[in-house]
Amino acid sequence: MEHAQALEQLMQLQQKMSAFGHAMALLQFDGGTTAPAGTAANRGQTLAILSQEEYLLATGEQTVALLTELDACKDELDPKKARMVELLYKSIREMQKIPMDEYVAYSQLLVESEEVWRTAKQNNDFALFCPYLEKIFETERRFALYCAPDMDPYDYCLGKYEDGLTRQTCDEFFSVLRARLVPLIAKIGQAEQLPDDCLHGHFPAADQEALSLALMETMGIDMAHCGLATTEHPFTTSLGSHFDVRITTHYYEDNFASSMYSVIHEGGHALYDLGSDDSLAYTVLDGGVSMGIHESQSRFYENLLGRSLPYVTHVFPKICACFPEQMQGYTATDLWRAVNRVTPSLIRTEADEVTYAMHVMVRYELEKQVMSGALAVKDLPNAWNNLYREYLGIEVPSDTEGVLQDSHWSFGGIGYFPSYALGSAYGAQLLAKMRESVDVDACLARGDFAPINAWNREHIWQHGCLYKPGELLARALGEPFDPTYFTNYLESKYSELYSLT
Amino acid sequence: MEHAQALEQLMQLQQKMSAFGHAMALLQFDGGTTAPAGTAANRGQTLAILSQEEYLLATGEQTVALLTELDACKDELDPKKARMVELLYKSIREMQKIPMDEYVAYSQLLVESEEVWRTAKQNNDFALFCPYLEKIFETERRFALYCAPDMDPYDYCLGKYEDGLTRQTCDEFFSVLRARLVPLIAKIGQAEQLPDDCLHGHFPAADQEALSLALMETMGIDMAHCGLATTEHPFTTSLGSHFDVRITTHYYEDNFASSMYSVIHEGGHALYDLGSDDSLAYTVLDGGVSMGIHESQSRFYENLLGRSLPYVTHVFPKICACFPEQMQGYTATDLWRAVNRVTPSLIRTEADEVTYAMHVMVRYELEKQVMSGALAVKDLPNAWNNLYREYLGIEVPSDTEGVLQDSHWSFGGIGYFPSYALGSAYGAQLLAKMRESVDVDACLARGDFAPINAWNREHIWQHGCLYKPGELLARALGEPFDPTYFTNYLESKYSELYSLT
Repeated sequence: MEHAQALEQLMQLQQKMSAFGHAMALLQFDGGTTAPAGTAANRGQTLAILSQEEYLLATGEQTVALLTELDACKDELDPKKARMVELLYKSIREMQKIPMDEYVAYSQLLVESEEVWRTAKQNNDFALFCPYLEKIFETERRFALYCAPDMDPYDYCLGKYEDGLTRQTCDEFFSVLRARLVPLIAKIGQAEQLPDDCLHGHFPAADQEALSLALMETMGIDMAHCGLATTEHPFTTSLGSHFDVRITTHYYEDNFASSMYSVIHEGGHALYDLGSDDSLAYTVLDGGVSMGIHESQSRFYENLLGRSLPYVTHVFPKICACFPEQMQGYTATDLWRAVNRVTPSLIRTEADEVTYAMHVMVRYELEKQVMSGALAVKDLPNAWNNLYREYLGIEVPSDTEGVLQDSHWSFGGIGYFPSYALGSAYGAQLLAKMRESVDVDACLARGDFAPINAWNREHIWQHGCLYKPGELLARALGEPFDPTYFTNYLESKYSELYSLT
Repeated sequence: MEHAQALEQLMQLQQKMSAFGHAMALLQFDGGTTAPAGTAANRGQTLAILSQEEYLLATGEQTVALLTELDACKDELDPKKARMVELLYKSIREMQKIPMDEYVAYSQLLVESEEVWRTAKQNNDFALFCPYLEKIFETERRFALYCAPDMDPYDYCLGKYEDGLTRQTCDEFFSVLRARLVPLIAKIGQAEQLPDDCLHGHFPAADQEALSLALMETMGIDMAHCGLATTEHPFTTSLGSHFDVRITTHYYEDNFASSMYSVIHEGGHALYDLGSDDSLAYTVLDGGVSMGIHESQSRFYENLLGRSLPYVTHVFPKICACFPEQMQGYTATDLWRAVNRVTPSLIRTEADEVTYAMHVMVRYELEKQVMSGALAVKDLPNAWNNLYREYLGIEVPSDTEGVLQDSHWSFGGIGYFPSYALGSAYGAQLLAKMRESVDVDACLARGDFAPINAWNREHIWQHGCLYKPGELLARALGEPFDPTYFTNYLESKYSELYSLT
């Protein structure tokens, strides 16, 4: 076979995989947004069949022969093509190790699990979700051992979301955070609390939706290619390629800041996805390279920019336009102080920047224990509540606000959580680097995201999955990853906010 | 091969086809509801690939061998299996005659066309849509000649929506309607007009949505398996099987009756789809058998029941609950008279029961002429406006309210329109038959659709595509189809409403 023909087939294979991916992502998006309550099994049937077709396509003789041929001559390929072959070959080799019937059954289980989790969360009924979660943990462990029999299964899961991440790296990273943040949280706890009464009141969902759209516009999101919907748990998904991205949010009518920062967070994910170079569309290089880098973007916009004084000052008039009565008598600085109030709390997605990492550590510790067999799934609620008491000093009143709060486990996202904390730390270091060439505060003050987005596009977004996360970061930063950028940022910002000495 | 094995494969084939159908229907639903404006090409790419996969599945060697084997022994199969083989064999034989690249290109064209039509309608710009519509008519004619070279292409198109329908049947049917309805319309035109001021005012979309949900409930629609969304042009779609049906509507804030009757109309389609026997799920027998029968159900609920005095009286308090100020001073009888006002008008979907068939005749005449080559697509606006002047005596002020008003042509639905008029006539005869065993007016008066729905389920819904439309109708009616049931119904109802002599 000529290389040219093989390369043409390589592109066609990826286009087909993108089409299956598009259909399956849309089925899941529909399930989370507008699908009627009783339709999950019907969707599960279709997802099972499509994932089986995708499996047959990815692991079929033709595909294996094609990739074997291209892998043999990868030194002659251009870097993009070589990376496509590398990524496809890796995922196919792993997929081949999972028996097809188990792969398909797991897809179907996850669809049902998400539905069951939603009901369980609504009714504070962990027992309902427990057998599903047991199967999920058991399957993740089994699949990990199929794919990497010589590796610890949880290390394998961590690496799925951040290439190269292990328990050892996590333990080291979290110990730095713990050493610096525990004293900071303690000092803040003794300081005078920041008032946040401007966030409380009645904020109708329709007005919050108008604010969501206004926020997306301030961030420079291309609204012709990015939609907004409502779901129980906010998320971002790309449909087929970076030409169609959807973000979701959840409106609480008694507090508009929750959805506001969800939208900015998911908007950061969307900007990253939308920013892939067009030449990467319909290939495995399209979209974000890892969850850690993804969270570096989402938490960059949410916190590093979104909770800064210049940004809050810029959007304050837009917020007042949506809630003219509710915001009467408050200033931009009041709002800025309110959205930066630090309090040990129950819900991760509502947590402030400082205590946030503690929420992640709880999940990391629990996943590590369940995956090693040291903790049974049925004992998770109790273990969860104990760690919240230990790390954050608070009592968990219900599983709805405790172990059932996040959707991640219901869709099989074991190993996902550490990337949130890692992303925050990546983001702080990226911002320091960006400040060398961009006057970020001035941009935010005038509501001009173009120079900020251009920097992120140049250094992060456009590359899609061309580089491994570590390499992408090294290229962008010009120095090794260092979590103290993040801890320094937090200490400096919150010392000022809380007048700490 | 054993029959048992072949029959197992037959079921698997249909499950796969249902899964592809589910994915493609959802992509189209997403395009019409929540997708961002710039994402049509991305969706078109995925639809092209999925339709290609579906084509390969349906026409592949394995499938053809399977169906050939089963077709040879069809006398030994139970009636359901025999009908599955018949329907699949028919559609595959036709599909095989269309070259795959043309089939795929057409799927992609239709996705783009729908997007272009939407823009063209919005901007009153027929010239924008014209080249797409030319390609659609040209492709429909070409495909018809591939599939049935000995048949008139427009007859072929008509038969796609109603098995056995031809220009001759349509001409005869419409001549009966014309003979009876033209004099009726003339008499009504000379009578004192019914006031409809209770329909006019300001009706916020959110309140109309609440009414939509209330109406769906009155009709006995299973809300766990039927969703409601908003689109430019209302439609009903089934996703994968009758376990997941979606209806859509469009809210005009100056007139709530438009959406109200759209919802009841689409709700009728939904009831039919939802009512397939569960044993038919994931087979080609699932869902409605033809557009004529489908419209017999949708227009049955919309007009024969929905615009009757007992039903309007029953829902009047629900309407008042949604619009307490707007409905002040009006009675149920005022509303009943208003929603039955007869006026020659521009928009088919807003037309009253009596003039409705005239709108259909316009489209039928134009399709017939374009398909025969007697009329060029570019001349459609002018021809449309002339026929509206001739049939309804009104001037068409813009293509938005004229030739661009319906979405059907943009999705390739040439030959679809006559089934609307046919369905109305089927419905009137079905109602007469139902009245022999069900006290329909008493049911409507107390808002109890159960006996009505049970009759339709027994005679129509449960059978899915098991019988051809003509056979289904003959079984339900016990006598041949007779359009004078419909004309008698209209003459009797409107003579009373307009006090005609």
